Amino acid sequence: MSDIEELLQPYRSAIEPALEAATEFGPGCPEKLREAIRYALLAPGKRLRPALVMMSAEACGGSISDALAPAVAVEMIHAYSLIHDDLPAMDDDDLRRGRPTTHIQFGEATAILAGDALQAAAFSHLYRYCREPARAARLMGELALAAGPAGLVGGQEDDLAAENIRIDQFASPLAARKHLESIHRRKTGDLFIACAKLGGIAVGGSDEQIDALVQFAGAFGLAFQITDDVLDFTASDEQLGKRTGKDSERGKFTFPDLMAAEQADKSQLESNQAAGRTGHVTATEIHPGIELARDHAAAGIRDAHRSLELFGARAVRLGQMADYLLERTS
Amino acid sequence: MSDIEELLQPYRSAIEPALEAATEFGPGCPEKLREAIRYALLAPGKRLRPALVMMSAEACGGSISDALAPAVAVEMIHAYSLIHDDLPAMDDDDLRRGRPTTHIQFGEATAILAGDALQAAAFSHLYRYCREPARAARLMGELALAAGPAGLVGGQEDDLAAENIRIDQFASPLAARKHLESIHRRKTGDLFIACAKLGGIAVGGSDEQIDALVQFAGAFGLAFQITDDVLDFTASDEQLGKRTGKDSERGKFTFPDLMAAEQADKSQLESNQAAGRTGHVTATEIHPGIELARDHAAAGIRDAHRSLELFGARAVRLGQMADYLLERTS
Repeated sequence: MSDIEELLQPYRSAIEPALEAATEFGPGCPEKLREAIRYALLAPGKRLRPALVMMSAEACGGSISDALAPAVAVEMIHAYSLIHDDLPAMDDDDLRRGRPTTHIQFGEATAILAGDALQAAAFSHLYRYCREPARAARLMGELALAAGPAGLVGGQEDDLAAENIRIDQFASPLAARKHLESIHRRKTGDLFIACAKLGGIAVGGSDEQIDALVQFAGAFGLAFQITDDVLDFTASDEQLGKRTGKDSERGKFTFPDLMAAEQADKSQLESNQAAGRTGHVTATEIHPGIELARDHAAAGIRDAHRSLELFGARAVRLGQMADYLLERTS
Repeated sequence: MSDIEELLQPYRSAIEPALEAATEFGPGCPEKLREAIRYALLAPGKRLRPALVMMSAEACGGSISDALAPAVAVEMIHAYSLIHDDLPAMDDDDLRRGRPTTHIQFGEATAILAGDALQAAAFSHLYRYCREPARAARLMGELALAAGPAGLVGGQEDDLAAENIRIDQFASPLAARKHLESIHRRKTGDLFIACAKLGGIAVGGSDEQIDALVQFAGAFGLAFQITDDVLDFTASDEQLGKRTGKDSERGKFTFPDLMAAEQADKSQLESNQAAGRTGHVTATEIHPGIELARDHAAAGIRDAHRSLELFGARAVRLGQMADYLLERTS
């Protein structure tokens, strides 16, 4: 077992049966819909987001079981967003977590509905399993905000619109970086931040603790996205269980492109982007932005660690999960 | 102004500006996404569901303004479900409320995302505008349940699967009726029931009051669906602002088909269904089930009235709204 697998193991042991149980929707749910939901929700995965919820709860002095309901809910939102992102009208992906995507397996109509159902189910799950009403309301409200038009969905809309926008169309590399970070903050960052918040809220964490967790998750989410961009260049389809090199194919610039642009002059940049687009790039010497992006992710992880100082030993695992981002290969 | 327009006018005056204000999602929401959401949510409509929320609140002794937040939330869920139902992979409709459907106007990706965003926004709206946490949690929980895999979404999945299932494939007309009622109960009835519940919950209605409202809304929802099926035969595209005659085209049986089957022998039924499928049927003599379906709706409305006895004069408008179903032409 790798270090990260060992770290995540207790959280996965808790979340897997909870996800399984959460798909008992009763006789009103058609069997095909339930199968599609289970296919997407129970697909093998690291369960980073549920782990972040539960580790955040532990950092505030709570237990894994106290945070199980929000951990299930965030994974439901994550699974729904993947189903819809993969649709033909969106990213049009046929492979996810090493298997056919939900619309390939169950048809497009059922895939859309499975995503819709998972979003609703996330909220009813929180209501059902969180007995303290004020806490339940806050958990649902925070999750809805992160998942909504100014969060997850807004980020995806802007991400789709980002195809064929070049870095040199912005006034400066800094403006381009703000644009890219804003997309990722909403598309992936807001849900990581919600994970940390929900974990804290579920166990009655103080405002100071929840603020620190939000800082941590913001830095973690950005580093996650940077390493994701790097892997899109350096990893194979088999390693990631999804198609790689797609950002370059679609003319989307990524963090490595941006890092290179911030260092290089424009003529050098254009040759980098062209190199990125010719196909699958595996060596950092072909794209000088990769090492720079890794450095940037490492700086983010250092920020993340500083946010954890408040918690002392109770946040050791959160710190270890952040460190893993620098070594991830899938 | 028709009777129904006069009846609904005070509720529409309250809900329209509230819907408008509810689409201020802040700078994180991309402009195109916001436009698509507004296009769908602010499209001209009777706002029956928000009116049901507010009238239910009044029946329990509350005011319109007390129930405004849940009224907005249910209309958001309703608007999202229409956007997704109209998608090419689903019912593939190009006309809704007399205008091009959202995916025709904004593209399929943005339409999917606008629906997703509206669902999340319904829950964050409830959280934001309902200051009493226990009540907010219950409102969100009930709405999520009605919108979820055993409610709205489950009904739509079964409705899509119902194409080309004939009445004579069931063991009896009664079994066929149970099947049809189960689809409609989930696809449209559960949201009407949620409207009534949310209106009652929002103003602190008693369990007895909320139970009576649920009975009312269940009967109302079924009568609504029966009259909808009748209109699909008898009204024009212009009257309804959407394509009519589609159920027959798709080989879906409807309440008029069912009512006829319950009376006639099988050979007569087959000729009725065949008549339904040849195109647009406008005269009841062509389809003997239409009058029978109207009678069935009228019986449902009588049931609905009985559920209101508990409330006395405070439920007069709910009763009037139910009566309108029998006269509706659009």
